Amino acid sequence: MTDRDSNSNILVIARKAKSMAQRLANLDSETKNRLLLSIRDNLQKNRERIASANEQDVQAARKMVEAGTLTPPLLSRLILSEDKIDQLSTYLEEVTKLDDPVGKKQFAMKLDDNLELTRISCPIGVVSIIFESRPEVVIQVTALSLKSGNVAILKGGTEASHSNRILFELIDQVLESYGLKGAVNLIETREDVADLLHLDEYVDLIIPRGSNDFVRYIQDNTKIPVLGHSSGICHLYLDEQCDPQKAIPVTLDSKLDYPSACNAVETLLVHEKISETLFPQLLTELRNANIRLIGCERTLQLAELHQVEMEAAAENDWITEYSDLVLSIKVVSSLSEAVDHINACGSHHTDSIITENSQAADYFLRQVDSGCVFHNVSTRFSDGYVFGLGAEVGISTNKTHSRGPVGLEGMLIYKYLLVGDGQVRAAFSGKNARPFQHIPLTLD
Amino acid sequence: MTDRDSNSNILVIARKAKSMAQRLANLDSETKNRLLLSIRDNLQKNRERIASANEQDVQAARKMVEAGTLTPPLLSRLILSEDKIDQLSTYLEEVTKLDDPVGKKQFAMKLDDNLELTRISCPIGVVSIIFESRPEVVIQVTALSLKSGNVAILKGGTEASHSNRILFELIDQVLESYGLKGAVNLIETREDVADLLHLDEYVDLIIPRGSNDFVRYIQDNTKIPVLGHSSGICHLYLDEQCDPQKAIPVTLDSKLDYPSACNAVETLLVHEKISETLFPQLLTELRNANIRLIGCERTLQLAELHQVEMEAAAENDWITEYSDLVLSIKVVSSLSEAVDHINACGSHHTDSIITENSQAADYFLRQVDSGCVFHNVSTRFSDGYVFGLGAEVGISTNKTHSRGPVGLEGMLIYKYLLVGDGQVRAAFSGKNARPFQHIPLTLD
Repeated sequence: MTDRDSNSNILVIARKAKSMAQRLANLDSETKNRLLLSIRDNLQKNRERIASANEQDVQAARKMVEAGTLTPPLLSRLILSEDKIDQLSTYLEEVTKLDDPVGKKQFAMKLDDNLELTRISCPIGVVSIIFESRPEVVIQVTALSLKSGNVAILKGGTEASHSNRILFELIDQVLESYGLKGAVNLIETREDVADLLHLDEYVDLIIPRGSNDFVRYIQDNTKIPVLGHSSGICHLYLDEQCDPQKAIPVTLDSKLDYPSACNAVETLLVHEKISETLFPQLLTELRNANIRLIGCERTLQLAELHQVEMEAAAENDWITEYSDLVLSIKVVSSLSEAVDHINACGSHHTDSIITENSQAADYFLRQVDSGCVFHNVSTRFSDGYVFGLGAEVGISTNKTHSRGPVGLEGMLIYKYLLVGDGQVRAAFSGKNARPFQHIPLTLD
Repeated sequence: MTDRDSNSNILVIARKAKSMAQRLANLDSETKNRLLLSIRDNLQKNRERIASANEQDVQAARKMVEAGTLTPPLLSRLILSEDKIDQLSTYLEEVTKLDDPVGKKQFAMKLDDNLELTRISCPIGVVSIIFESRPEVVIQVTALSLKSGNVAILKGGTEASHSNRILFELIDQVLESYGLKGAVNLIETREDVADLLHLDEYVDLIIPRGSNDFVRYIQDNTKIPVLGHSSGICHLYLDEQCDPQKAIPVTLDSKLDYPSACNAVETLLVHEKISETLFPQLLTELRNANIRLIGCERTLQLAELHQVEMEAAAENDWITEYSDLVLSIKVVSSLSEAVDHINACGSHHTDSIITENSQAADYFLRQVDSGCVFHNVSTRFSDGYVFGLGAEVGISTNKTHSRGPVGLEGMLIYKYLLVGDGQVRAAFSGKNARPFQHIPLTLD
């Protein structure tokens, strides 16, 4: 296949997706839920085909692990065990139970007699979701897209290609039986993704879920809005008045609970007034947990004093997401220095202060310019499920549309509907202008 | 000045703007309102300076009108009469009366005992607003930016440069006296705008208000989110069951009330079953109003029959925004053909159906994929002031963030605040996981 063919292939998919968008936008809740349960049934009827396709991916991945081109954790994420196939059903059922987010009245106003304005939620249209290795994501994002009335263009990880393909085929069969073929689409290569990035006429939103470099590549190469984050440089600030009983466990949890997660802490900021008393225990516990420590000059001195192994930080360490058992530590002389450091070096993802001083906490919550700003709690809590959003589409560090953990709301926009009885604008302007009433109406 | 200098000049402004953003985001409502009233006072104290700077622009513009390089309407929009200077005060006072949109609690949930999540509105940060000729826009967008806690980078029309500069100088004096110098910035050349488009690290949103070509140029040349619309190809569809008593006045108003407005109708779609009865009067009235008519083959035949002057439509006419006394007319054989035409050829701005059939209206309102979809009302009603939004930042045809007429809400985003008492994430996962309570809290 030449580049040209590949391009026109994606163009055909994107055009069809766009033309399907209005149909999908207007499906009623009952149909959407029936559709999800039909997909569940089709998956359960074809468990063996799913398992055998997955086995092909797993075998290939095992060889890659042996050859050292794939890490064991990536292999384990690839496996669709019997349990996981059961979980697909549970997941689809759970999404049917979510409130239908489409068609919600958000605003209503009487402009004049027989002239009423409403604003209702509606799907964005065509959403492309690009993710890595775990094949069950095909089902998760299909469920979220259909529930929110969006046409989906999916691209999964190459290592999971057989698994993704069978899951897509089973979804596609159901869609076809509902006359909705094209509501979910699968694309397979990086070249397809590269072509898709140019199709801003047809694709309304891209949600990339993957490595920082990959997300940044997407952000840098498309005019289509991108919902996501390219890095998670999260901070924990231990204030002058922090309670060590909270500071130490929260620091350990923020790093250790899931070191490669985007909401794990990367830099610990510590007020100079407590560094001398807090560091002996804190640094020892961090090292005992096998965390590689990187410190500013002041931190290094204290580490040396207490015989804790530590490396010297380079300027680059303050803007590095380690995604591993590594933590950079800096002593600051004030709360405002901590806030300024976070706003300058962070990725506006999640930052937390530990303090018993409510004024300091209030300052931090107001002044830190991040999607999630916490007080006395681990950075690891920034997550759509934890927040009770029902489902998580991604975590965004954007300043428009959606920020922080994003639920189904991130796949929705709205439209204004105005219903009158023949009114003309000229009657409301000029010398004898009729005034607008502008009476807010209740949302029922 | 070399390109290099110009670039670094804008870079300095943008960096300062970013560093001012958190200060401005945390101003209380009272301070913001006092600031706006101080600006009002400073404008009133300096009426003569404003008038004399404006006179310089007006004189230069008069010469351009004589030379044929500027149109008389643009000249008249440039004039800051005594009345208009008074209106600047009224405008600033009105914005002080608007509800402060910052710090609103949008969502609150108890995750566990002593672990509460809230979501509050906050400014986007640094917003660049680019507009044409009318100098009073400097005051309007300054008021909206400050009220919403956003740092503004403004670029006005070149013809209004003396007026813009004095208005900016008077704003800047007040900002300096509040220690907020840099909260509003003025840039002056197209080259400055071109440089700004690359500064996505510092500028969070661009709101261009100007010609279609200019907005498209902005959209095509920046990764910064752009709020706006590059064209307003609005449709009016006269359904099989429309009431001529509504159809004819609404058609005339949609075109005539303000032909160059983005919400003026460009294409009239007419159901074939009523075209023969409706066209004699409709086409005659349109021609009597001096509207140049462009028709599809069927429309042309009927125009000829009734001796109404009309040109034949080319394919391009269906995707043209005339912004003038010109209207293209097409006969369609069904409601769904009308909807498909609108979704394919329109700019997703504003489209209206005239019908007495509520099912047809419902189908149209649901299926037309535009920011504003109307029933039995002129397209000219799509406007932030008309909608009661308090103020209009622009009209957006985007599918993310804001759509349709956009009020202050379009300059806001939100952040999540989570307050605990030392919780760690590990306690809520694994075998003996503590469950989340997820109890929605009232928004007070």
